Amino acid sequence: MRLLFLGDVVGRSGREAITRNLPEWRKKLALDLVVVNGENASHGYGLSPDIARSLISAGVDVITLGNHAWDRRDMIGHINQMPNIVRPINYPAGTPGQGSYIIDLERGRRALVINVMGRIFMDPLDDPFRVVSELLSRHRLGMTVNAIIIDIHAEATSEKMGFGQYFDGRVSLVVGTHTHVPTADHRILPKGTAYQTDAGMCGDYDSVIGMGKEAALHKLVRKIPGERPQPAEGEATVCGLLVETNDATGLATKVAPLRMGGHLAPNWPDF
Amino acid sequence: MRLLFLGDVVGRSGREAITRNLPEWRKKLALDLVVVNGENASHGYGLSPDIARSLISAGVDVITLGNHAWDRRDMIGHINQMPNIVRPINYPAGTPGQGSYIIDLERGRRALVINVMGRIFMDPLDDPFRVVSELLSRHRLGMTVNAIIIDIHAEATSEKMGFGQYFDGRVSLVVGTHTHVPTADHRILPKGTAYQTDAGMCGDYDSVIGMGKEAALHKLVRKIPGERPQPAEGEATVCGLLVETNDATGLATKVAPLRMGGHLAPNWPDF
Amino acid sequence: MRLLFLGDVVGRSGREAITRNLPEWRKKLALDLVVVNGENASHGYGLSPDIARSLISAGVDVITLGNHAWDRRDMIGHINQMPNIVRPINYPAGTPGQGSYIIDLERGRRALVINVMGRIFMDPLDDPFRVVSELLSRHRLGMTVNAIIIDIHAEATSEKMGFGQYFDGRVSLVVGTHTHVPTADHRILPKGTAYQTDAGMCGDYDSVIGMGKEAALHKLVRKIPGERPQPAEGEATVCGLLVETNDATGLATKVAPLRMGGHLAPNWPDF
Amino acid sequence: MRLLFLGDVVGRSGREAITRNLPEWRKKLALDLVVVNGENASHGYGLSPDIARSLISAGVDVITLGNHAWDRRDMIGHINQMPNIVRPINYPAGTPGQGSYIIDLERGRRALVINVMGRIFMDPLDDPFRVVSELLSRHRLGMTVNAIIIDIHAEATSEKMGFGQYFDGRVSLVVGTHTHVPTADHRILPKGTAYQTDAGMCGDYDSVIGMGKEAALHKLVRKIPGERPQPAEGEATVCGLLVETNDATGLATKVAPLRMGGHLAPNWPDF
Ligand SMILES: [Fe+2]
Ligand SMILES: [Fe+2]
Ligand SMILES: [Fe+2]
Ligand SMILES: [Fe+2]
Ligand SMILES: [Fe+2]
Ligand SMILES: [Fe+2]
Ligand SMILES: [Fe+2]
Ligand SMILES: [Fe+2]
Repeated sequence: MRLLFLGDVVGRSGREAITRNLPEWRKKLALDLVVVNGENASHGYGLSPDIARSLISAGVDVITLGNHAWDRRDMIGHINQMPNIVRPINYPAGTPGQGSYIIDLERGRRALVINVMGRIFMDPLDDPFRVVSELLSRHRLGMTVNAIIIDIHAEATSEKMGFGQYFDGRVSLVVGTHTHVPTADHRILPKGTAYQTDAGMCGDYDSVIGMGKEAALHKLVRKIPGERPQPAEGEATVCGLLVETNDATGLATKVAPLRMGGHLAPNWPDF
Repeated sequence: MRLLFLGDVVGRSGREAITRNLPEWRKKLALDLVVVNGENASHGYGLSPDIARSLISAGVDVITLGNHAWDRRDMIGHINQMPNIVRPINYPAGTPGQGSYIIDLERGRRALVINVMGRIFMDPLDDPFRVVSELLSRHRLGMTVNAIIIDIHAEATSEKMGFGQYFDGRVSLVVGTHTHVPTADHRILPKGTAYQTDAGMCGDYDSVIGMGKEAALHKLVRKIPGERPQPAEGEATVCGLLVETNDATGLATKVAPLRMGGHLAPNWPDF
Repeated sequence: MRLLFLGDVVGRSGREAITRNLPEWRKKLALDLVVVNGENASHGYGLSPDIARSLISAGVDVITLGNHAWDRRDMIGHINQMPNIVRPINYPAGTPGQGSYIIDLERGRRALVINVMGRIFMDPLDDPFRVVSELLSRHRLGMTVNAIIIDIHAEATSEKMGFGQYFDGRVSLVVGTHTHVPTADHRILPKGTAYQTDAGMCGDYDSVIGMGKEAALHKLVRKIPGERPQPAEGEATVCGLLVETNDATGLATKVAPLRMGGHLAPNWPDF
Repeated sequence: MRLLFLGDVVGRSGREAITRNLPEWRKKLALDLVVVNGENASHGYGLSPDIARSLISAGVDVITLGNHAWDRRDMIGHINQMPNIVRPINYPAGTPGQGSYIIDLERGRRALVINVMGRIFMDPLDDPFRVVSELLSRHRLGMTVNAIIIDIHAEATSEKMGFGQYFDGRVSLVVGTHTHVPTADHRILPKGTAYQTDAGMCGDYDSVIGMGKEAALHKLVRKIPGERPQPAEGEATVCGLLVETNDATGLATKVAPLRMGGHLAPNWPDF
């Protein structure tokens, strides 16, 4: 299976880079599955149902979220009708939506996508290790599903790398989101799980993590409230990674970053 | 000027990768200046005077530190005798050591190296924006010094990217350390400052940010104290970036990541 | 000098308890000076110029603030015209308003009121110990001013108690605010400074730190956004402390909590 | 039922104040049950089995813990043999010890004691609201047990007051620990649960939350490591609260602070 994961889409610039490129890339990269983190797609704060639909129309199969999941309040009412929008699984019982989704792919294959939030330096949700372990106790990679993708939305690299190591061999991919900066540590862990600490954002990098420089610096330097930061509007870099997995074992065989457009050094996967 | 910056050296594995390779790389890359973050060089916790000397013998010119600066208590007494060991500049007045160092290079050139700590999700030191601005008010890039390198040791990507944007055009390089994961966002900012959110560690990546997986996972998952985490002992990846600057303007002309050895995808600069 | 300090006024309930009682209490307690923390006076979020004026009309001499200082944006424009509204002194240089105020009292006496913010578990401002030390280097208790009152707006008890001990003997009173719960540790420290870790809020305690229970619990338990918490509207308890100082030395001679009205056990000072 | 709850015992000074006074107080106050938080009893860091035994000999029935539960590593091995030492209930499954204890009292009465940790500004354990709700779903106040006491060991007053309000009517007492400062907000909540945000420590208040001033201030002001803070050795104030409950309903009928000895204003319950 060939799957593309793209990190936090920030505002119009990030959305348009995806809707403009993805239809072509799906073919060119022979993608079976596209997962995108959409927590900042609506003007930097949350995901509206309409924007979710436009991403899906462009070829996104599953959208994951994070700490900004509910910035757009209408998502609270809509998420139950949109099962391929996945919010962090470790919210308390009773939270609208689901924390995982099984998607049926071509040739009878199935993939399980999980979104989970870290707790270090973040709002304390349920234990991500425990909650994901419980879900995985009901799944067997290569048996009940052909691939398992985990988006761990977290701040601390220790928590993300620990998460990757902990689930190594039990899932196809552990990829981080939330920091809005792509890491260069993509690799396949010893037991076969593809890993990258952060996918990076799909947004304008001539910014402060996607937001306009002036307003973001006002907040960092002046410490008094100013204009609400808005997404920077320059050309986005689409950031993510391409993973190839073995459908029988569910483990990763290849992983490479994808970075195209905007201000970062481009990288097109060589497989 | 051609300068190499290497991220947090973690334990024996990280140190040996540097002492083994640096003498050759200095020549091969025609380096004028080598700066290394050494806050985890002594068994993962701090920097001992002896280990500092061994790094310097191998060709390191300046060693920066971070929140682990004082884990080795003997550094408190020794740092004043070792001016090319630079601790975060924003410690309170009266802290041993200095937060910056001017090194004289070949052909009469000089470089100013600054170490500063972020405050978001970290122990609150003095305002890094203010303290570095004050120091820079006494320096003019291309006039008093030919290059200015800032190692911002920080957790939050917003603070690091904001720092880079804030000092863009006033320094040669803003590079982050502390997260122990290299980022793939190296670039030259609009006004000429080279930037990368994190240099990545020089250590074994088959680990949890450089420390043995078992002990690190015990802490993350069990929440009760276990064995003190020790550095992983597998082959290190040396992580950093090569920057070429214009000696007249002090601004960056080229930047590329360097990643060699161990478990990450290698990258040798192409200039 | 007899001074009354009252903690964070929360919403209408808190304001009305003060405007209703203070005129009488000023006489009854023979008060020379009344200082109130007003950071939550405007519907729980910030302080509007009008509400500031109404508190002043009721007999408040100086109003201190905290992390909610700028929730009411109009305060940014008005604070420079209202010198007896004091914001935390350790905001960066250039912040509107002042962090201290000297008030002229009857019989030629003067009192210096300082507001400062802690940094542990809070937004990192400048070092409170350093900034207050610098200001105090220009004042001599009993000489340039007859009393010095410090409102340390902070979360951690260690930082507040440490602050009290550090300035013991150099000021008349160190009193904490921000937690919205009165502490029972009022006393005179060994060198003569009156101290209480938190003055407690002036607000309805049948609440969650002054805000309506339902909305506050939604946030704590559900972790998804709900109604914005609004101040609880039951009867407020006015919380603070009465301090008597020696005008010649500036040190404290007596301290007692004042707690009146609402849901807490009442305490009227016995001096 | 008449129960005494005492807050964090800090070091020798705190221990001795309890062992010296408790035997007499048990009689004088006709106590049915004494619960003490012991997380700092061993030189400020943790609880040793021997010190636990000495507290129990002096008349303590149940000892609760907190974030310092495991500072004394030997407690990890001993806690399963000492069921009346209760660690926070929201540690992950598999943690040694138990988070609650049912004690049999005179005349066939039983009391359930629960220790739970908050998560705001603390290490993220399992959701305290959920975990305690689950336990309470198996108990009925006045039916299965005659009293339920919850020690919520937490930093943020919002979390503690929210916890009290959430369980109001379902338990006899919600009392906070951890900040080492007694609060003056003891009361009976609308549905019958006694509440106080923090019991305060049993230790020397001429200190920084129980630790020697010099070492504690070094850490706060200097930001570089110094001597490890040790408990202050002056006379302790024993801090806690006396609660009277109705054995049939399990709800509180009276609550009053107890503060005796040392540097705080004394308060002896009037019932
Ligand atoms: Fe994001
Ligand atoms: Fe996020
Ligand atoms: Fe480090
Ligand atoms: Fe660090
Ligand atoms: Fe407040
Ligand atoms: Fe506040
Ligand atoms: Fe404690
Ligand atoms: Fe504690």
